[in-house]
Amino acid sequence: MPRRIEIVEVGPRDGLQNDPVLMPTEVKIEFVERLIAAGVTRMEAASFVHPKLVPAMADSDEVMQRVPRRDGVKYIGLALNERGMRRALDAGCDEVNFVMVASEGFGKRNQNATPEETADLFDKIAVLAQDDGVPVSVTISVAFGDPFDGEVPVDTIAMLAERAAKAGAMELALGDTIGVATPWDVRERIDAVRAVVPDIRLRMHFHNTRNTALANAYAAVESGVDVIDASVGGIGGCPFAPAATGNVATEDIVYMFERGGFETGLDLGKLIETAKWLETEGLKHPVESMLSKAGGFPG
Amino acid sequence: MPRRIEIVEVGPRDGLQNDPVLMPTEVKIEFVERLIAAGVTRMEAASFVHPKLVPAMADSDEVMQRVPRRDGVKYIGLALNERGMRRALDAGCDEVNFVMVASEGFGKRNQNATPEETADLFDKIAVLAQDDGVPVSVTISVAFGDPFDGEVPVDTIAMLAERAAKAGAMELALGDTIGVATPWDVRERIDAVRAVVPDIRLRMHFHNTRNTALANAYAAVESGVDVIDASVGGIGGCPFAPAATGNVATEDIVYMFERGGFETGLDLGKLIETAKWLETEGLKHPVESMLSKAGGFPG
Repeated sequence: MPRRIEIVEVGPRDGLQNDPVLMPTEVKIEFVERLIAAGVTRMEAASFVHPKLVPAMADSDEVMQRVPRRDGVKYIGLALNERGMRRALDAGCDEVNFVMVASEGFGKRNQNATPEETADLFDKIAVLAQDDGVPVSVTISVAFGDPFDGEVPVDTIAMLAERAAKAGAMELALGDTIGVATPWDVRERIDAVRAVVPDIRLRMHFHNTRNTALANAYAAVESGVDVIDASVGGIGGCPFAPAATGNVATEDIVYMFERGGFETGLDLGKLIETAKWLETEGLKHPVESMLSKAGGFPG
Repeated sequence: MPRRIEIVEVGPRDGLQNDPVLMPTEVKIEFVERLIAAGVTRMEAASFVHPKLVPAMADSDEVMQRVPRRDGVKYIGLALNERGMRRALDAGCDEVNFVMVASEGFGKRNQNATPEETADLFDKIAVLAQDDGVPVSVTISVAFGDPFDGEVPVDTIAMLAERAAKAGAMELALGDTIGVATPWDVRERIDAVRAVVPDIRLRMHFHNTRNTALANAYAAVESGVDVIDASVGGIGGCPFAPAATGNVATEDIVYMFERGGFETGLDLGKLIETAKWLETEGLKHPVESMLSKAGGFPG
C-alpha cells in the first residue's frame, strides 16, 4: 500500500484572496466543482474576515451556501476572531481554521495581536466550534520568518503549538506565509513541535516565493507529516514580494509525490486542466505552476 | 565550520545553449566576468560541438581565448566526441566534460549513440585529456527519464558510472536533462552509483522543469553529494517542453543552502544583480529565478 499524502486545496481561499482579480461568486462555485472533479476532498473555501480588509472573500457566506455538498468533501472556513468563528459556523463550514501568529511584527499588522494574544483568543473561541461539534484547526502564520521582524524563534512555535493542542485543535499547520523556509527549518520546527505535542496531526503550508516549497514539502513528508496545503496553479501571490509567486502549486506537488510512489487521490491531468481554466477563464491571467507548462512524465 | 557545497555555474553553456537569444561573444565575456565577481570559481563556459547543431556555442574557441584567467577560476568545456575533445583541449579548457547517455531514444537523437557506445567512446577519448594532464568528468544525461523512451533503468546508470570511473573520470554528474526527477529518484540513483563506484566524486545537474530541482538538490546534499550545477537566472529552457523553464537557478539554490547553514562562496546579491543584468542587457527577456523577484531573507 502506498503511503497517502493528503493535499488540502487552498486555492479558493488563500489563492483567490491574494489574486489581483476578484472572482465572481458563480465562477468560484465552478472553480470548486472543478476541484472536486479532480479529486479534492478537503479545501479552504472561505474566509470570515472583514469584507473591507479582504474584498475577495466578501462573498464567503454565499459561497458556503452554494458549494456542492458531497459525501467525503469537506470545506474549511478561516477565522481570526470570535465574529469570524460564529460566521464560519453559521455558514455551515465543515471545519474552521484559526490563525495564530508566530511573531509580533506581522501579528500586529495582520490581526492586531501578539502571538500570546492569538493563543488567548483561541482559548476563548475554540469552544464555540466544539459546542457545535465542528472540528477546529490552527495555522501558525509566519512560522518560518516575519516580513517585519525577520527571524522567528522556534520556542514561540513550540509555545503556540502547545497552546493550540491544549485548547483542542485537531490539527496544527505551520505556515510559511512569506515563503522563506528551507528544508532544515522545516525539520527543526517539526521536531520542536513534536517535542511538546507529540500526537497532534501536523499540516504544512508552504509558499514557493523563493522556490523552496517542494523541497520543504519533501522534508516534511520525510519527517512523517501527511498533510500539505497547496493551491491549483500556484495562485495567490505574496503581498510582501509583489513580483513573486505564492502558494505551492497543487499539480506540482502532486507530480512529485505521485511519481515518488505516494498516493494523493488527485488527478494530475484534471488539476492541470483546472490551472489552464484559471488562465483562460477563471482569472484570465497566467498562473505560476510548472506542471501546467511542462506536463507530466512519463507522457 | 559549515559544510561547503560547490555550485558549478552552467549558465554560459547549458543556459545560453537553450536560450532563444544568441548572445554575442563580447557579452558572453561580460557575463563570465560578472559571474566571477559573484564568486563563481568553476563554470561551464563552452561546448565543442558542431556549430550548425548548436549555433549558440559556435564561438566557443573564441570565448575560451577571451575569458579572464584568474587563479582559482576553472573553465569547463563540453565534448561529445573525439573532435570536440581535441578542440576543448586546444582551446585551453581547464576541464573537459564528456556526455554519456542513459537511454537510447535520447542518445540516438542527441549524439547518434547508444549508452554503451557513449561509454566505448569515452574509453577512447578520455586518454586524450589525460595525456594533456587535463581532468575529465562525465555527465550521464537523461539519467532520470528520457523524453522518447520514458523510464530509464537504474542499472544503466550504474553500468555507465562504472565505465566512467574505470576510464578515469574524476567526477560523475547525473543529469536530469528534461526535469522529471524526484528526491526519491535522486537517492535511489546515488545509492546505485555508490554501490558500484563508492569513491567517485558526484555532481548533480538538475532542471527545474517540474519544480522539483531544489527538492532534488536537497536530497542529493542529504545523501552526501557536495557539487551541484546551476545557472544564474535559471536560464536555459527545455527543448522538450518549450513553455517550461530549464536549469535550476543559481541564486535560488544559493539562497536555500546558505540559509540552511551551508557555505557556497557565492554572493547572493551579486547573483541577483547578474540575473537582472541578463533580463535588461544580457538577454533582454525575463528569467525564471525566484530570488531575483523575491529577494533574500532576512533583508
